Amino acid sequence: MKKIMECVPNYSEGRNRDTVLAIAACFQNKENVRLLDFSSDEDHNRSVFTVIGEPEDLKNAVIESCKVALEKIDLRVHEGQHPRMGAIDVIPFIPIRNCDIEDAKNIANELGRYLGEQLNQPVYLYEKSASSPLRENLANVRRGEFEGLKQKMQDPDWKPDFGPLSPNESGGATAVGARMPLVAFNVNLNTADLSIAKEIAKKVRHSNGGFRYIKAMGVELHERNIVQVSMNVTDYTKTSIYRVFETIKMEAKRYGVAVVGSELIGLAPVMALADAAEYYLQIENFNVDQLLEMRILEGEE
Amino acid sequence: MKKIMECVPNYSEGRNRDTVLAIAACFQNKENVRLLDFSSDEDHNRSVFTVIGEPEDLKNAVIESCKVALEKIDLRVHEGQHPRMGAIDVIPFIPIRNCDIEDAKNIANELGRYLGEQLNQPVYLYEKSASSPLRENLANVRRGEFEGLKQKMQDPDWKPDFGPLSPNESGGATAVGARMPLVAFNVNLNTADLSIAKEIAKKVRHSNGGFRYIKAMGVELHERNIVQVSMNVTDYTKTSIYRVFETIKMEAKRYGVAVVGSELIGLAPVMALADAAEYYLQIENFNVDQLLEMRILEGEE
Repeated sequence: MKKIMECVPNYSEGRNRDTVLAIAACFQNKENVRLLDFSSDEDHNRSVFTVIGEPEDLKNAVIESCKVALEKIDLRVHEGQHPRMGAIDVIPFIPIRNCDIEDAKNIANELGRYLGEQLNQPVYLYEKSASSPLRENLANVRRGEFEGLKQKMQDPDWKPDFGPLSPNESGGATAVGARMPLVAFNVNLNTADLSIAKEIAKKVRHSNGGFRYIKAMGVELHERNIVQVSMNVTDYTKTSIYRVFETIKMEAKRYGVAVVGSELIGLAPVMALADAAEYYLQIENFNVDQLLEMRILEGEE
Repeated sequence: MKKIMECVPNYSEGRNRDTVLAIAACFQNKENVRLLDFSSDEDHNRSVFTVIGEPEDLKNAVIESCKVALEKIDLRVHEGQHPRMGAIDVIPFIPIRNCDIEDAKNIANELGRYLGEQLNQPVYLYEKSASSPLRENLANVRRGEFEGLKQKMQDPDWKPDFGPLSPNESGGATAVGARMPLVAFNVNLNTADLSIAKEIAKKVRHSNGGFRYIKAMGVELHERNIVQVSMNVTDYTKTSIYRVFETIKMEAKRYGVAVVGSELIGLAPVMALADAAEYYLQIENFNVDQLLEMRILEGEE
């Protein structure tokens, strides 16, 4: 695959195995599309898929899965702990390789238009695709959930970006958007004093004057009797992991505290780490295509 | 592909385009085999291919290419600047992913046996596959070249590991072996004094008491008026790039000199760099499968 886009669609079905497998089938044995992972949660009554592919092929597979979801999932009888407003609840597109956030926005737009115009499903564009600041945050878009959707959509602020002006009877509405890959990165401190982790979290996070693409909080690691600055890096291409790491080290010194380790949670793009190696090793003119495995991916048909 | 082995076979033909393309064809449109790169040099009269694949499929493709080379290349009429002793001159196997040097040695042995027993081509195992220390170094194995081979093979020290006890009439003999991926990594110093780069090179290289898997020399970068410690890391899994980098920084201080940058030349495995990020960011329990693109490769059929 030359271009790699990721999509992590969320469907409001985590109990009916047939439905989940029918959705999964939309991503299997498709050219230039690969299902990396999926998981269903019975309490949430929700399934999350991680799919990657060439943007156009990926979009077509997601459309197919939306048809299945709209046909098989009826939100009027749906119960679960997770907030939701649609049978296909939220569809983020994430640029991974040889494509950027603009490409992801284009695909999100095309998919949103298809859902609205062809499948009669109202669509709100969110995150980087949002048509107004109010719609950037998914929690805002979804507030009121399926049950409150009919009333919410009568508010001119909540006219959908695509599709009918009232909810799909059984399918509700869907949030579609582009975002950067999230990197979950935590830094451990050799103190049991939670207030120190909380203070440092404030200093590095955007909401309190820190880095633009850092969300952070302080947490206790009880079993190790230490504390941690727990972070989401929402755009590692602009706020580098090494920069926030070095800043945390610097701030910790102020309290006589040292960094004893860090954790990378879940998946991260190669460049999120290669970027750190490039900085610390002072590599000039580094190109990610110098990494052998990236060349193998590049050669993919 | 689950397992990825690399092979970089060298053929003694760099001028006849038909022959080179016939060799290339052995690696194209093959399941689980991918030709990443190839280049021919007319002066050397030699072509080098970079191929990766599942070990067994890769071996079969290489065998096919050897048949083509033995049929089409006649060393009795071969001229070129590069030392050579065989129509297929040297075949290294290099473990890249989910396989190790033992797997590479096994494949090298199997290929060597096939060349010797089925294709009547004498084979010397070299590098990590060498049956004696004398055969580890390719230059030793190849010394005397095609023209001296008949006499050399009469020496009991140079009985081949596989195949006939005298050269293949038109094909000579072939060196086959396993080695680790080479990483070419250079570190630039803010001085024009070559003797400093040479001193530091001595301190880090194996031959003078340095790291086991470092070859190093000092060179001048004339256009920038600085010097460089130029290195080959012959096993980055045992001698980490960050370790030699930090050692060079430390040694440079002794001369009041600073590291101003570094270069990664050609291709390197992702882990060679991720290893450095893991060290500097102090990441606990890092696993290369946490890198999204590695998961995509993993999912390859």
